[in-house]
Amino acid sequence: MIIGILGGGQLARMLALAGHPLGLQFIMLDPSEDACAGVVADQIQGRYNDIAKLELLAQKADVVTYEFENIPAAAVEFLAKKVPVYPPLLALTTAQDRLYEKKLFRKLDICTPAFVPINNLEELQRALKEISYPAILKTRTQGYDGKGQAILRRNADLTTAWEHLNGVPAIVEDFIPFDREISIIAARNHSGEIKCYPVTENVHHAGILHFSKALKNDSAQHQAADYVKRLLNHLDYVGIITLELFQVGDQLLANEFAPRVHNSGHWTQNGAIIDQFENHLRAILDLPLGSTDSSDYAAMINLISTVPSREKILQQTHANLHLYGKEERTGRKLGHINICTSDEATFNKEIGALQNIVNSG
Amino acid sequence: MIIGILGGGQLARMLALAGHPLGLQFIMLDPSEDACAGVVADQIQGRYNDIAKLELLAQKADVVTYEFENIPAAAVEFLAKKVPVYPPLLALTTAQDRLYEKKLFRKLDICTPAFVPINNLEELQRALKEISYPAILKTRTQGYDGKGQAILRRNADLTTAWEHLNGVPAIVEDFIPFDREISIIAARNHSGEIKCYPVTENVHHAGILHFSKALKNDSAQHQAADYVKRLLNHLDYVGIITLELFQVGDQLLANEFAPRVHNSGHWTQNGAIIDQFENHLRAILDLPLGSTDSSDYAAMINLISTVPSREKILQQTHANLHLYGKEERTGRKLGHINICTSDEATFNKEIGALQNIVNSG
Repeated sequence: MIIGILGGGQLARMLALAGHPLGLQFIMLDPSEDACAGVVADQIQGRYNDIAKLELLAQKADVVTYEFENIPAAAVEFLAKKVPVYPPLLALTTAQDRLYEKKLFRKLDICTPAFVPINNLEELQRALKEISYPAILKTRTQGYDGKGQAILRRNADLTTAWEHLNGVPAIVEDFIPFDREISIIAARNHSGEIKCYPVTENVHHAGILHFSKALKNDSAQHQAADYVKRLLNHLDYVGIITLELFQVGDQLLANEFAPRVHNSGHWTQNGAIIDQFENHLRAILDLPLGSTDSSDYAAMINLISTVPSREKILQQTHANLHLYGKEERTGRKLGHINICTSDEATFNKEIGALQNIVNSG
Repeated sequence: MIIGILGGGQLARMLALAGHPLGLQFIMLDPSEDACAGVVADQIQGRYNDIAKLELLAQKADVVTYEFENIPAAAVEFLAKKVPVYPPLLALTTAQDRLYEKKLFRKLDICTPAFVPINNLEELQRALKEISYPAILKTRTQGYDGKGQAILRRNADLTTAWEHLNGVPAIVEDFIPFDREISIIAARNHSGEIKCYPVTENVHHAGILHFSKALKNDSAQHQAADYVKRLLNHLDYVGIITLELFQVGDQLLANEFAPRVHNSGHWTQNGAIIDQFENHLRAILDLPLGSTDSSDYAAMINLISTVPSREKILQQTHANLHLYGKEERTGRKLGHINICTSDEATFNKEIGALQNIVNSG
């Protein structure tokens, strides 16, 4: 059985690492010469809108999935006529557009921050009478890791912020002074079976995820799981989905969802019985979903821009290192460390030690 | 950093799967066209005694290891002049010959069954006056999975058994009516750091390992660890070693050692903080050894000859499936299932269910 993947980055790489033990093989389509999944998967080098390359992928693969949502929906539409593609197209097109996404949340009675779609400066000015400062302006499409976003604090910010977007359709939202950013990762297979991992608390710096901690038996679990199940069932979803939420007091507000395995779920590689990568593969192959039971304490620290001393990292008893085989570059995700244990004091001590190692490069 | 491996079977495959997250890459030398490690490692196709191919491996790899002990010692000797090779040659040549192996055990005060080297039928007949029936005749070299062995129950067996060996040098040993067969797996790095996994109880059928169970806090741990440390230090060993022992009452008798990762340690993939494959790589790269702490209950069931229904296996909550991507063939190891949990009742229930699934094909 050969799994096709659109994209050959670290998520494709970790899908393949999780899938080989199930007896699966992998082929990915990626434009770059040194796609980091290339050491564990065959590669078709080409652009995502290259029909001949898509045709080849469809011929070679028994089922196709994707590792990120900024691929042309037309590519998935084309492939889906020739080979099963999961998650479904509707999930992809919805996740690609913040307006569709927010409207779907509302339709499913999933709370969101207030939002207004914006097509020009006048609409932005009008919206800021309805939505109070501070607010956040986001492009409807193509945003990731905080890119394509601007915080609006006063009327004077509007013109600059709008011009910065180069006139692309946008959305303006209430800026939420959240207590926590959390995400929930869940899997659904063809048969409609659903499994949710424990919610994860996420810490971003400058829009990039730095740290995630699994919250076993957290008070937000029930609400978050309920929200994500509504999404999964409505979309007749197959695969892993990630729903990102802001928590304010007891309230959860949906921010966005990703129709894929997610950085905030990397801790499951060492902290859950079956990780998000294997469960994504099980879901798209309609195999029984694996247990999402987790260790008592589990967290993940991202390695960004540089990789610190491997020796120092590996000296920490519960550190599991996951490098992506990528060259160092500012702002680039190069790997992560998982820390999983049943002892809280050890957990906190090792996280502290690892954060020191990571911060001192 | 590129790791070279002599052999491209499942052990090489699992070394590579464990090593990619450390940012390592792999190249293996294997004669077969469909070496199952080929999906996660580059391959040089060639025989182990092909000097040009060994030369190429030495050029490409920063350090070389091997996945099984039936490779020509001359190949390792040749490579070792050009590139670091671990485990050391002396460990390989000793493990390749049951007589050298047993003599080393004795030298290190590691108890063994009584044994006599045999070069002809007369020596065999003479030996059976010293060693009582039942005894076991084994070729000194090239034996694995019970091959090259014959049980001797009476004088009449001697001629047939000896003729069966085609005159190769052999060893005759006391047949041990053991209570348990156990193994201990340990790692040693360049710096002399040693870590031992919990001993494992092993069940063989017709010479092939079928089932291994980790024995956490077992009464045999101290003695087994002491034995394996003597071996590691004497050999100035680097890498993972496996020492197989017979237990009779409280006594441990060394049977053989393997200078490599071992089937009886596959449970560590899901039942230990750092598994045998990663610890082998850490050892040969002189990185800090990873924790060998294990879950309370851990076991492994081998999949031999056929792979049963993947659906049924994956329905068991704590089953982690590891397939090798090999065609089905009688007597061939095709994969294994690990079962790891902290609850004894669940553990026993799932092992029973999985053994039923495996036995019913």
